[in-house]
Amino acid sequence: MNDNFLKACRGDKTDYTPVWIMRQAGRYLPEYRRVREKVDFLSLCKTPELAAEVTIQPIEILKVDAAILFSDILIPLEPMGIKLEFSESKGPIIHNPISSEADINNLRDFDPNGELPFISETIKLLRKSIKVPLIGFSGAPFTLATYMIEGGASKNFLKTKKIMYQSPECFSKLMESITTNTIKYLNSQIDAGVQALQIFDSWAGVLSPHDFSLYALPYVQKIIKELNNRVPIIYFAFNSSSMIDLVQTSGAQVIGIDWRIELSQAAEKLGNNASVQGNLDPCILFGTHELIQERILDILNGAKKARGHIFNLGHGILPETPVDNVIFMVEAVHQLSRA
Amino acid sequence: MNDNFLKACRGDKTDYTPVWIMRQAGRYLPEYRRVREKVDFLSLCKTPELAAEVTIQPIEILKVDAAILFSDILIPLEPMGIKLEFSESKGPIIHNPISSEADINNLRDFDPNGELPFISETIKLLRKSIKVPLIGFSGAPFTLATYMIEGGASKNFLKTKKIMYQSPECFSKLMESITTNTIKYLNSQIDAGVQALQIFDSWAGVLSPHDFSLYALPYVQKIIKELNNRVPIIYFAFNSSSMIDLVQTSGAQVIGIDWRIELSQAAEKLGNNASVQGNLDPCILFGTHELIQERILDILNGAKKARGHIFNLGHGILPETPVDNVIFMVEAVHQLSRA
Repeated sequence: MNDNFLKACRGDKTDYTPVWIMRQAGRYLPEYRRVREKVDFLSLCKTPELAAEVTIQPIEILKVDAAILFSDILIPLEPMGIKLEFSESKGPIIHNPISSEADINNLRDFDPNGELPFISETIKLLRKSIKVPLIGFSGAPFTLATYMIEGGASKNFLKTKKIMYQSPECFSKLMESITTNTIKYLNSQIDAGVQALQIFDSWAGVLSPHDFSLYALPYVQKIIKELNNRVPIIYFAFNSSSMIDLVQTSGAQVIGIDWRIELSQAAEKLGNNASVQGNLDPCILFGTHELIQERILDILNGAKKARGHIFNLGHGILPETPVDNVIFMVEAVHQLSRA
Repeated sequence: MNDNFLKACRGDKTDYTPVWIMRQAGRYLPEYRRVREKVDFLSLCKTPELAAEVTIQPIEILKVDAAILFSDILIPLEPMGIKLEFSESKGPIIHNPISSEADINNLRDFDPNGELPFISETIKLLRKSIKVPLIGFSGAPFTLATYMIEGGASKNFLKTKKIMYQSPECFSKLMESITTNTIKYLNSQIDAGVQALQIFDSWAGVLSPHDFSLYALPYVQKIIKELNNRVPIIYFAFNSSSMIDLVQTSGAQVIGIDWRIELSQAAEKLGNNASVQGNLDPCILFGTHELIQERILDILNGAKKARGHIFNLGHGILPETPVDNVIFMVEAVHQLSRA
C-alpha cells in the first residue's frame, strides 16, 4: 500500500511528494474514450464495473499516488428531485431549476445506500483491487446550489445571487437541505471504504469574502465538523486564493489551491493548520518538458514551508492534454521531490 | 467643474466619495437602448454625435462624478489588421485570429488620429458639454492579445497560453506590437482632451502570479511609464485580487479592484502608493435598498485607510440592473460619504 498521499494529508513525512490529478479519469486518456464510446456519461457513473475501470486507468497509466472515485458532483441531486442531463456539447443541464420557495420545499432527503447504491458498490470494487488510497468526494453546498438554481453553467450567477440577496431565508433553507444530504452522502462513502474526501467548491470564487462567510463557508464547516475526522478532508474552493484566510477556517486538513497564488504564499498562510494541495496551471502541460520541470520545481520549492504537500493541478486536466506530458509530470514530481 | 474624481485619483481631499460605474453607458438604461435601436454597436462607437450622447446619459440620469468615453477595448485592433464583428448573441468575434508568427508579422502599426478619427472627435465634443472629468481607456496588452488569439470569448485561454508557453518569443513580439500601438492610442486620447485613463485587464486573472509577471505586467508598466504622468491612470486587472502586490507595481495612480477582496485589505496593501477604485458586486444592485446601503457602508468604512477612493462596481454593470437601484446607489455613496 502506497500511503504517501494519506501521510501528506496529515502532515507526516513522506518518501516523495504524492501526486494525483483532478479529472485524472477523463477524456484526455484514449483508454477512457474507448469506454465512453460504449456508454453515456451518466450510465458510466452508475455502472460500478465501468466506473471502477476508468477510476483505475490513471493509476496504471500515470502512476499517480491516489485514485478518485469516478462520479460527478451533481449525482446526489437526482434523488433530491432534480432532473439531470449531461449534454455532450453544453455540459450539465437541469430541467427543473429551483426558482421559488415551493421548489425548495419539494426537495427530498435521500438515503445514499438505497438510492445511489452504485456509489458504495464502486467504492467496494475499487478497494479490493487498488494499492493507492481512494478519494471520495462531493460538491460544496454553495456550488451545488448554483447548479440547482442556474440550471447549468452560468456567467454572472445572477439567479443564485438574486435569491441570496432577495430571499436570504429561502437560500438558507436550500443550503441546509443540501448540507444535510451531503453529510449523509459523504458518510456513506466513508462507510463503503473511501480513505479521504475532497469537497469541490467550484464556484465559491464568484462570491465576495463577505458573502462567502455568510452564504457558503458555514455549510462547509458544518459538513467537516459532522464528519468528525473519520478521514482526511480536502477543501478545494476554486478561484478563492484572495480569501485563503477564510477558506482555511473550513476545518479541512488539506486546502486545495488554484494557480492564482504562489504555493509558498499559501503554505505560509496555512502554517501548521493544514496541508496544501496544488497548484500547476493545467495549461502548463501543453509546454515543453523543460517548462513543465521548471514550474514543478517552483512548486516543490514553495512547498518546503508547507505542513504537507500533495501535488496536483490547480483545476481539472483539460481534454486536449498530451498524455506523454502528464506521465512526464508525475515522474518528475516523484523524482525531483526525492532529491 | 466637479473635480472630486480627479482629486481622489491623486489622493487629495474630496467633498464626498466620487463614483462612476463601469459600463455606465449601457443596455440597462432605456435611453441607451433607444439609441441602439437605430444603429449597431460598432456604428455607435464610430459616430461621434451618438457616442457622445450615450456617454452623457449616465451623467444626467445617475449624477455620477466622471464620464467614460463610449467605445470598446477592441476598437484599436481593427486598424492593426484584425477583422472585428460584434454579434448581438455571442459578443465580439474576430474573423482572422492570430495563430502563427506570420500573422503577428502582418499586424500593422497605426496612426490613431488618421485611422480612428472618431475617437478624438467624440472626446472633443464631450469636453465642450460635460462638467465632470472625462475618462479615456484601452485594453491592457495581455487582454487584447487573448481576444486576438482566441478570436472571442474563451473558457481556458488555451490557445493564448499555448503560444505563451510554446513560443514565448512570438508572444513577446505580439505584446510589443500591441503595447506600441496602445501608447500612441492613449496619448492621442490625452491630446484630444481626456483627463484620466483606465487600462482594462479583463483577463489578467487567468494567469498565475509567475506568468502575470512575465507575460502581462511588464507591458502595462511600459505603457504607464511612457505616458509619463500626463493624466492619472487607473489599472483594473479583473480577478487579480490575490496578486494585488504585483498589480500595484504597474505604476498606476489608482488600482481598480473587484469584489473578491475586502476594500480595506486592498487599501492597506496599497498604502500611500495608489488610490483604490471599487468594489461592489454588481449583483448587489438586485438587492433591497437596505442591503445596497449596508454594503456601501462596508466599502466606505474600508476606504478610510485608503490614500484616495473612487466608488465603483467590481465589474461592469449588468444589463438587467434596475435603474432605480443604480440612482439610489449613487445618491447613497454621496450622502454617506459626506456624513
